[in-house]
Amino acid sequence: MIKVTVWNEYYHEKVDENVAKLYPCGIHNAIAEFLRQDDEVIVRTVSLDNPECGLSEDVLDDTDVLIWWSHLLHDKVPDEIAQRVKTHVLKGMGFIPLHSSHFCKPFIALMGTACTLRWRDDDRERVWCVDPGHPIANGIPEYFELEREEMYGEHFDIPAPDELIFLGWFKGGEVFRSGCTFKRGYGKIFYFQPGHEEYPTYYNEYVQKIIKNAVHWAAPQNRRKTIEAPRAISPEADLEKNNL
Amino acid sequence: MIKVTVWNEYYHEKVDENVAKLYPCGIHNAIAEFLRQDDEVIVRTVSLDNPECGLSEDVLDDTDVLIWWSHLLHDKVPDEIAQRVKTHVLKGMGFIPLHSSHFCKPFIALMGTACTLRWRDDDRERVWCVDPGHPIANGIPEYFELEREEMYGEHFDIPAPDELIFLGWFKGGEVFRSGCTFKRGYGKIFYFQPGHEEYPTYYNEYVQKIIKNAVHWAAPQNRRKTIEAPRAISPEADLEKNNL
Amino acid sequence: MIKVTVWNEYYHEKVDENVAKLYPCGIHNAIAEFLRQDDEVIVRTVSLDNPECGLSEDVLDDTDVLIWWSHLLHDKVPDEIAQRVKTHVLKGMGFIPLHSSHFCKPFIALMGTACTLRWRDDDRERVWCVDPGHPIANGIPEYFELEREEMYGEHFDIPAPDELIFLGWFKGGEVFRSGCTFKRGYGKIFYFQPGHEEYPTYYNEYVQKIIKNAVHWAAPQNRRKTIEAPRAISPEADLEKNNL
Amino acid sequence: MIKVTVWNEYYHEKVDENVAKLYPCGIHNAIAEFLRQDDEVIVRTVSLDNPECGLSEDVLDDTDVLIWWSHLLHDKVPDEIAQRVKTHVLKGMGFIPLHSSHFCKPFIALMGTACTLRWRDDDRERVWCVDPGHPIANGIPEYFELEREEMYGEHFDIPAPDELIFLGWFKGGEVFRSGCTFKRGYGKIFYFQPGHEEYPTYYNEYVQKIIKNAVHWAAPQNRRKTIEAPRAISPEADLEKNNL
Repeated sequence: MIKVTVWNEYYHEKVDENVAKLYPCGIHNAIAEFLRQDDEVIVRTVSLDNPECGLSEDVLDDTDVLIWWSHLLHDKVPDEIAQRVKTHVLKGMGFIPLHSSHFCKPFIALMGTACTLRWRDDDRERVWCVDPGHPIANGIPEYFELEREEMYGEHFDIPAPDELIFLGWFKGGEVFRSGCTFKRGYGKIFYFQPGHEEYPTYYNEYVQKIIKNAVHWAAPQNRRKTIEAPRAISPEADLEKNNL
Repeated sequence: MIKVTVWNEYYHEKVDENVAKLYPCGIHNAIAEFLRQDDEVIVRTVSLDNPECGLSEDVLDDTDVLIWWSHLLHDKVPDEIAQRVKTHVLKGMGFIPLHSSHFCKPFIALMGTACTLRWRDDDRERVWCVDPGHPIANGIPEYFELEREEMYGEHFDIPAPDELIFLGWFKGGEVFRSGCTFKRGYGKIFYFQPGHEEYPTYYNEYVQKIIKNAVHWAAPQNRRKTIEAPRAISPEADLEKNNL
Repeated sequence: MIKVTVWNEYYHEKVDENVAKLYPCGIHNAIAEFLRQDDEVIVRTVSLDNPECGLSEDVLDDTDVLIWWSHLLHDKVPDEIAQRVKTHVLKGMGFIPLHSSHFCKPFIALMGTACTLRWRDDDRERVWCVDPGHPIANGIPEYFELEREEMYGEHFDIPAPDELIFLGWFKGGEVFRSGCTFKRGYGKIFYFQPGHEEYPTYYNEYVQKIIKNAVHWAAPQNRRKTIEAPRAISPEADLEKNNL
Repeated sequence: MIKVTVWNEYYHEKVDENVAKLYPCGIHNAIAEFLRQDDEVIVRTVSLDNPECGLSEDVLDDTDVLIWWSHLLHDKVPDEIAQRVKTHVLKGMGFIPLHSSHFCKPFIALMGTACTLRWRDDDRERVWCVDPGHPIANGIPEYFELEREEMYGEHFDIPAPDELIFLGWFKGGEVFRSGCTFKRGYGKIFYFQPGHEEYPTYYNEYVQKIIKNAVHWAAPQNRRKTIEAPRAISPEADLEKNNL
């Protein structure tokens, strides 16, 4: 079983009635709902207003993959908790920041870059697959469309991704590296661009399939208990052991 | 000085009067002309109808960077000569296949994949830079436009590029990895998508700048005389030499 | 279920009694034997002396992952069959060339480089893991030792791997990129260096674990029926469909 | 001209007479000395005990490539100054952290990982080149030896490098990714492992050549004035301009 925690700042849904209509229980619960169709996944949802932002050491120790959605309240996550999330990723926890989470503290800290991008409201997007053999692209057609999505455009200031899976085309004239993987320490990261709160993106079948696939891909095989340096091998011990 | 050889199948310009008007001396000579503005570059042009396709061992030995344009006559290049070009790349010669040269024999042999792509005539392209610190992007704005260009779209069946520098956006709804680098052996390869023979692409200032930059980037520092395996180090010799 | 075909040139085991003692049924059957401990894997073995080298279209259509071992008889595989294997990889079949198979025809054709390396008989190897979070490294310690192994050393003339998982240290003074992944088309490739026929490498628990892991990693999610180019999208059709 | 600033914590040379004998004017001045043989390079040296650690905005604005050496006093560099260095890298300044600088604050912040490694005093190293066509490898043989060097071993907890150029072999049994490039924002980074303060590493001709090469490679072509996000393109403006 893969233990997934879906984190949401959970703000727009409370203060904007249009968003509330789309996601009455919050984006985190909409994501949880489709993930629960997967028998190999156990899902928990947490949000900013939980104690410790819902991201205690216990919760993270019990999380295989953390999905993250934030937009306006990035800075309400204390530095200490952002650092804690980063450390858990380096120890092996999978991490899937969605859409505007390109600017969340743990992602910026893991990337080491500014993570800036170009943006504009309300465009039409076509998501193209450029790595159709990748597990995250399993079951996804050559391209699919999002009738309305916020435009995110290049230059996206990230390190060159380890793998580039999806490219976004926007009617207004921009392109974006919309689905990217990164490995940091023992942890696997998948950034996925679609998911503006004003549009029903998380009800799109392909968006759901991609996030499901990404959960399986990001689930750790190996984890480490600490990010301390490995022990130096004593050459003398090695000499004895190996008859060097 | 960087010695550049520009190779062209030189066919459309002879049989299509519209192409002939655009490139009266052939695409190869149009490219050579703007490269000659660069004092550090010496340019020669050759084409399919030269002896040995203009690609004798002597010519290739005397070439730092080979620029290639072909479209309908890929198969007129004998396998032996395509293999010769590949070997020179592996020994260190730079290689810049342009546009429809994604299907030329040396590129396919160097990639190891099918190099297929999606295409359609007559679209509008916007070329975006996704690696603005790259030497090949020097002097190129965030994006530039080609009012008319042939659409090339994903999935482009190439290995994941070592570096992705430009992405193409097409008005009709497609995206493309338009500027990609690959290292193979000692040689540096830059594939660049714009350059359909029916449009004045090679007169665009940014296309010219990119090709000039790419020549400098692809020029070899180290070359090897053979692609034979390196000599095994004799452990005995090492023992003596290094007191292992 | 993952359908694995293990291919072996099956020569040394017939002509060298020391090798025959180590691998009385051939290296392919030694590999098959430990793979069969995995309930999710079905294994078939084939060798050079089978009709069509055991690599008919039917066999390859029915293969998810092809494991390959060859050394002295690379050239006995006809070009047509090597090309067939390559095409199946590009369509999605996983491919795991072992040890001296760095010089087998399908691997060279997929890499596009010379695939040369430095070598020497009879050394001691220590295999280090540099990507401990990778699925292929699952269950593998920081390093493990092979008391006797043939030395393979750099420079290994391959494209930069998509992922570098293992590095080999040799007592005589060399290093090697011993475990590398590549994606080509829809297919996943894992090259793994250990496995000289004169040593009991394939009985090492970690070597077995790595090959088992690699089979799961290389098994295709998506396959394509052809490596033909994708259909051009008609902009008119798109206009109708999408109200562009 | 390439403006190089060499930064050193400058501590061991003051408190350890053996180090002082090797590097009487400090490691930074030893590096500056051989760089000054290059007519295209202007060198300045600074150290921790300068005002603002020698790393004022003015100095960094006037620096094309920053070379960094620190070991015991990483934490004496204030967070604000480390952040300043990182920002300048993201804007385009080249950055070459040497040896124990794998643990300096700007490198850790740029990598986003723990940057831990395995280490041991006093071993013999052989540095192998695995990317002989790279500009940083220009003039470097297949391998070279450092009779005495501190052992740095895997697992080195860094993101997968954009390019891997050198691998270190250590007599005691370890390997290391000793020469790695990374691009972050507009800046180019080259981490190079050799250079323990107790050994005459920086007098080795190949070490000197590699650092000289790296200065040329890391010098920026494009720089940006800010790491702010790019301006959103107004679709209306585009409509007018481009007749979309």
